[in-house]
Amino acid sequence: MQKIRIGILGYGNLGRGVELALNNCPDMKLVGIFTRRFPATVKTALKTTRVMHIDEAENMKDEIDVMILCGGSAKDLPIQGPRFAKLFNTVDSFDTHAKVPEYFEKVDKAAKSAGKISIISTGWDPGLFSINRLMSEAVLPRCETSTFWVKRVSQGHSDGIRPIDGVKDAKQYTVPIEEAVNKVRSGQNPDLSTRDKHLRDCYVVLEEGADPVRVEHEIKTMPDYFADYETHVTFITEEELRKNHSAMPHGGFVIRSGKTGADNENTSIIEYQLKLDSNPEFTASVLAAYARAAYRLHSEGQSGARTVLDIPPAYLSPKSGAELRKELL
Amino acid sequence: MQKIRIGILGYGNLGRGVELALNNCPDMKLVGIFTRRFPATVKTALKTTRVMHIDEAENMKDEIDVMILCGGSAKDLPIQGPRFAKLFNTVDSFDTHAKVPEYFEKVDKAAKSAGKISIISTGWDPGLFSINRLMSEAVLPRCETSTFWVKRVSQGHSDGIRPIDGVKDAKQYTVPIEEAVNKVRSGQNPDLSTRDKHLRDCYVVLEEGADPVRVEHEIKTMPDYFADYETHVTFITEEELRKNHSAMPHGGFVIRSGKTGADNENTSIIEYQLKLDSNPEFTASVLAAYARAAYRLHSEGQSGARTVLDIPPAYLSPKSGAELRKELL
Repeated sequence: MQKIRIGILGYGNLGRGVELALNNCPDMKLVGIFTRRFPATVKTALKTTRVMHIDEAENMKDEIDVMILCGGSAKDLPIQGPRFAKLFNTVDSFDTHAKVPEYFEKVDKAAKSAGKISIISTGWDPGLFSINRLMSEAVLPRCETSTFWVKRVSQGHSDGIRPIDGVKDAKQYTVPIEEAVNKVRSGQNPDLSTRDKHLRDCYVVLEEGADPVRVEHEIKTMPDYFADYETHVTFITEEELRKNHSAMPHGGFVIRSGKTGADNENTSIIEYQLKLDSNPEFTASVLAAYARAAYRLHSEGQSGARTVLDIPPAYLSPKSGAELRKELL
Repeated sequence: MQKIRIGILGYGNLGRGVELALNNCPDMKLVGIFTRRFPATVKTALKTTRVMHIDEAENMKDEIDVMILCGGSAKDLPIQGPRFAKLFNTVDSFDTHAKVPEYFEKVDKAAKSAGKISIISTGWDPGLFSINRLMSEAVLPRCETSTFWVKRVSQGHSDGIRPIDGVKDAKQYTVPIEEAVNKVRSGQNPDLSTRDKHLRDCYVVLEEGADPVRVEHEIKTMPDYFADYETHVTFITEEELRKNHSAMPHGGFVIRSGKTGADNENTSIIEYQLKLDSNPEFTASVLAAYARAAYRLHSEGQSGARTVLDIPPAYLSPKSGAELRKELL
């Protein structure tokens, strides 16, 4: 079987994640990475990976089946998405929710004009979470509660702590409140505000001689950032911050609780949950699976932009329809 | 907008569930129920529902867009599936896992010859669980643990208790063991046998004067059925059995724990969970959503058998692509 030939455009955490994810996909082959940097300065995760300048991509049109765009949603993808959709089948993780419709139109136009397929906004949110929002809404239209939580590092709130006098460094996690999650899981219909759903967990390194009591008070009373939330402050050493808090753990739930029966007497709860040690590596694994789908759709003669909502699950798997029916149904 | 015209074939718990589910789908209209019984003897959940004899179905070809087959997998569907695929677009919940490939081939041939679409084996297992098995396998190919649990009433084990001297009635639930579930959820890689994963929870009504100690001992030591399992026995009244144990609660998990990173250093856990007060009503809601997909595929000129793995999520929703991109991505 001919392997699907993959290019990676952009080499940050996500590009590196895709490089590693492809290593687990025997039906795919990494042709190379394209970067804006001077290629010789890029240190790849795998020694064998070829690095080229982004300007060379256009010359590689016939050697790459799918280009995985690993740039950021704020500045890179709005330009790279439509541009590379004219040259390659593409997959990306564009995640500015409000701008998805506009981005879709632009990429769709470019991909159609070139007879290529572009799957946009893959990853997990948007992405796998979107699929679960859609499917649970379609199956349980008479819904009581539909909600979703994420645990994540908040860059903005971490930055908010650092200017406080006596703080050397800090990291803030936004964490779902277990009690609220359990209420929804148990089929109750709680009326939850943002502050009922998440608490703010802060890990702070103090400057020598700083007063922890004052710093904690300043954090907890900071308007907009922390004053309205349940806020936990833990003081740690610089060493602990580097060792235990440099990863990018993420996770979240999509929970939908709906009613069935003649008198709404029965509750059904659908929950989809992710716990991720590494957000970029998991997102990259999703991108790799959707590259398989892009290749297959293009092989069928399809073109234009697609989202995860348009892709049959079977297209993500290297297995044949008959194998899937036998093994997974 | 023209409503999708639906027929229901077979009126047991599942057919009744579909009748009620369609009530939540403003884009669909129930034309009627087809039964092998004498139609006037069938008491429907909704007063307005029309009941016809199954032999009339053939004459209704032009009045029904999708026929939802609500018969059983053991005896009804192997015959009804191929037969009605020649007349209608169909959706069913064929759930004999091992026979899915064979059933698919037969229905596929019939549907293709008639230019119709048949979506087989929808519901939740096979069905929504199959989708999650596929997607988590595709995204996390380097897997540590992939497992799945279900809480369910076991008819066979309930029947196994009843012949014991002194037992008037009984109901047995097979229940996932929380501790084992949590080990998998936390990313550990436990080596679990069936008995590590489930316990057997028995609710027993005694004959007057029967000795509970002896009955409990007989249950717990019954070979094959209970002796190898953690078994709980609770004695209740006949009234309690009828009131609290006549529903059909079900539920289950699909959990996959996989590794990412250069040295397998990061764990990702994907979990999909259902908690259902009524198994047939939830299954019926899934069937109704897939009826929408069958109608749409047929409108596009497609024909043949499909499974849930072949259906783009967007086809389950009454919303347009633009609405979905705006609201759910």
